[in-house]
Amino acid sequence: MTSPLALTMGDPAGIGPEITVGAWRALRETGPAFVFLGDASCLPDDAPVEIVEDVSGAAACFSRAIPVLQSQLSAPVLPGSPDEANAPAVIDSIARAVGLARAGAVGGVVTNPISKAVLRKAGFPHPGHTEFLGELCGVPGREVMMLASPMLRVVPVTVHVSLREALDTLTGEAIEAAARVTTAALRRDFGLPNPRLAIAGLNPHAGESGLMGREEIEMIAPAIARLKAEGVDVFGPVPPDTMFTPAARARYDAALCMYHDQALIPLKTLDMENGVNVTLGLPIVRTSPDHGTAFDIAGKGVAQADSLIAALRLAGTLAHNRASSIQERPE
Amino acid sequence: MTSPLALTMGDPAGIGPEITVGAWRALRETGPAFVFLGDASCLPDDAPVEIVEDVSGAAACFSRAIPVLQSQLSAPVLPGSPDEANAPAVIDSIARAVGLARAGAVGGVVTNPISKAVLRKAGFPHPGHTEFLGELCGVPGREVMMLASPMLRVVPVTVHVSLREALDTLTGEAIEAAARVTTAALRRDFGLPNPRLAIAGLNPHAGESGLMGREEIEMIAPAIARLKAEGVDVFGPVPPDTMFTPAARARYDAALCMYHDQALIPLKTLDMENGVNVTLGLPIVRTSPDHGTAFDIAGKGVAQADSLIAALRLAGTLAHNRASSIQERPE
Repeated sequence: MTSPLALTMGDPAGIGPEITVGAWRALRETGPAFVFLGDASCLPDDAPVEIVEDVSGAAACFSRAIPVLQSQLSAPVLPGSPDEANAPAVIDSIARAVGLARAGAVGGVVTNPISKAVLRKAGFPHPGHTEFLGELCGVPGREVMMLASPMLRVVPVTVHVSLREALDTLTGEAIEAAARVTTAALRRDFGLPNPRLAIAGLNPHAGESGLMGREEIEMIAPAIARLKAEGVDVFGPVPPDTMFTPAARARYDAALCMYHDQALIPLKTLDMENGVNVTLGLPIVRTSPDHGTAFDIAGKGVAQADSLIAALRLAGTLAHNRASSIQERPE
Repeated sequence: MTSPLALTMGDPAGIGPEITVGAWRALRETGPAFVFLGDASCLPDDAPVEIVEDVSGAAACFSRAIPVLQSQLSAPVLPGSPDEANAPAVIDSIARAVGLARAGAVGGVVTNPISKAVLRKAGFPHPGHTEFLGELCGVPGREVMMLASPMLRVVPVTVHVSLREALDTLTGEAIEAAARVTTAALRRDFGLPNPRLAIAGLNPHAGESGLMGREEIEMIAPAIARLKAEGVDVFGPVPPDTMFTPAARARYDAALCMYHDQALIPLKTLDMENGVNVTLGLPIVRTSPDHGTAFDIAGKGVAQADSLIAALRLAGTLAHNRASSIQERPE
């Protein structure tokens, strides 16, 4: 039997609690089962919860109630009004989830949204979830962000920096590192024995032989050549604007993109609701919904659980594939 | 009755001749009617053609044959092998089309693809069609490129330059100028009395309050404020990645984008086949298919006429709308 997933609390004043209930309703019959790591009191009153002593009790009760590994919040929860007094519990939920995953007690970690601004006020030094997870897993800086939907998987090589800083910091080495991590993850976690990556150009028409930028010639094509030489199945630089048509997408398993919006525009344009954030390069499976805490609508009963449901389903699949391939995996 | 459209020859060794026939077959019953400006001998042998003396004869024969305003090529046409000896005739076809449009003899100009490389060898000094049309119309530099499909209209403020040059040359004034030209065209040619533009941010999350780039704060938001002050209906800066979802697209008539791929990725991802290039800011209607000469498949009978058909249909609509609003238009 597959282990349940660990679902973190996220900011309890955001939409995390209500979408947790929505996801449980959608998945209680089919799975994957999850255990909620946080304070049961932040979940809406009408949701059946069951406090469990440890993860092993979670799967058995999942069809009738949300299993909760209980931890106490410091301050009462007011939806839409985050309280930094609760930041330690929010952080602890993440750390416990990673500990359970590294110990093999859960199949993977799915994180509810946190507020970086709230956590920063409480002294949290990391730019976000992903970097904190890299730290907790002992592989700081190796984490790679993928956005995955049923129609497209994208991996931006540069992420949350200005477009100018993306141009200034993009390197052939970063492209190669992201390609290697992505290929390994597609093989081990996504069940693709021969993964193929399309590598985007940076400039219009991929530079058109240097007429509109030389990064393709001087940086991207050489990185592609080095990757091919070591047996990574990649092609490019692909003109960015024709890279995401149905015919083009049929030719690759993931698109390696040079900057945030080159990756995120096509993903969200094609399928806003079902995008899942997957962190590659970690020793654990981790996914999250592709949205934030949404304090403005928290507690109003209008938040959609679709992206969290997709994140839980994908984490279940990745955990299953990773467990199946475990004998090939040196740990 | 609406005047016919002028369809230029484009490079006769490209796919222009065969897609011209494909478009005629698709449109012969329904219109819009067009007249082909070039050498009838470059059209496939199985296509019925009728040499006309002037434009007035075109509409009457359109349902039975392709009307051709004949001009002689200098060299025989070998599909896939362009000959710069024919460059003067290619250029003349464009110039004649513009002349007919400016004289009101045709409703607008639709251009078949040309090869900039071939024309440049023959001394053509313009970067492309669009700039040449600006010159011919006496408004050099005022032309604005729009890509239009049934699902989305986009206008890139910077176009065929490297991404770094786009960052270096983008200005608030350029954003304002493009917004004004686009709004005027949507009103006059697209039949939208109250056009609304979404103006994209440049950076991820539109800079997130300056955390990831300051162009939104220092350049784009002030341009938006000035446009609003003069009564142009615009909003933004919009986070680029969530700007092209179905819900987001319902809120605007065109998206003003900061660089080529920000505009072209969503357009081609949503609808590769039906994208039409529209040149705004000219005193004439001009559209073109959103592809090149495709020398590699020319003459093989596999080229799709879809984009040319869409370009002709859209030009017909724009010409009709412009004619209807002619009394409001100072010329």
